[in-house]
Amino acid sequence: MLEKTTRMNYLYDFYFSLLTPKQQSYMSLYYLDDYSLGEIAEEYEVSRQAVYDNIKRTEAMLEEYEEKLLLFQKFQERTRLLNQLKKSLNEDCSKQVILEAIEELAKLD
Amino acid sequence: MLEKTTRMNYLYDFYFSLLTPKQQSYMSLYYLDDYSLGEIAEEYEVSRQAVYDNIKRTEAMLEEYEEKLLLFQKFQERTRLLNQLKKSLNEDCSKQVILEAIEELAKLD
Repeated sequence: MLEKTTRMNYLYDFYFSLLTPKQQSYMSLYYLDDYSLGEIAEEYEVSRQAVYDNIKRTEAMLEEYEEKLLLFQKFQERTRLLNQLKKSLNEDCSKQVILEAIEELAKLD
Repeated sequence: MLEKTTRMNYLYDFYFSLLTPKQQSYMSLYYLDDYSLGEIAEEYEVSRQAVYDNIKRTEAMLEEYEEKLLLFQKFQERTRLLNQLKKSLNEDCSKQVILEAIEELAKLD
């Protein structure tokens, strides 16, 4: 569950601008502010089921956007490369290693 | 016009996966393969006006996606930083400069 929450937080971060204002509100209350479905339902004066359905649909949309655009996957890959680069800088400062990292980073776009 | 073509080619590259198959076909024939509107209309047995309208709408959608996700803008910024990093590597190999570039790159996500 924690893993899913983390993933949804990331996907929301990357794709929230493609969601409707209502989807943004529900997702942000549920995933960022840790509201329960019941609390969101009360706040918006709708049924708990309506909130649940909306959030499930939004989660599916976020996964679909990720499947198409891979922003989260590329972010992870880029983070890995940058950390690796930092680490190799601490060991020594080989131009070759840095140039290779730059090429890898450029390929990700 | 050339500038617009280049921009549309980039936006298409970043967001084509969010378009319908028909939008993808028209855009790719028009912008990548340099077909005229008339040639596309003939190929798909529709009016030239229909092709024109579809392409105009798709262009607007691509600009809207870019406004929301900024993938092209971030790509340009990342490319600039990587080129700058390569250049400073050729001058000398200062750890500080490289670490700063890494921080800048990480901030772009």
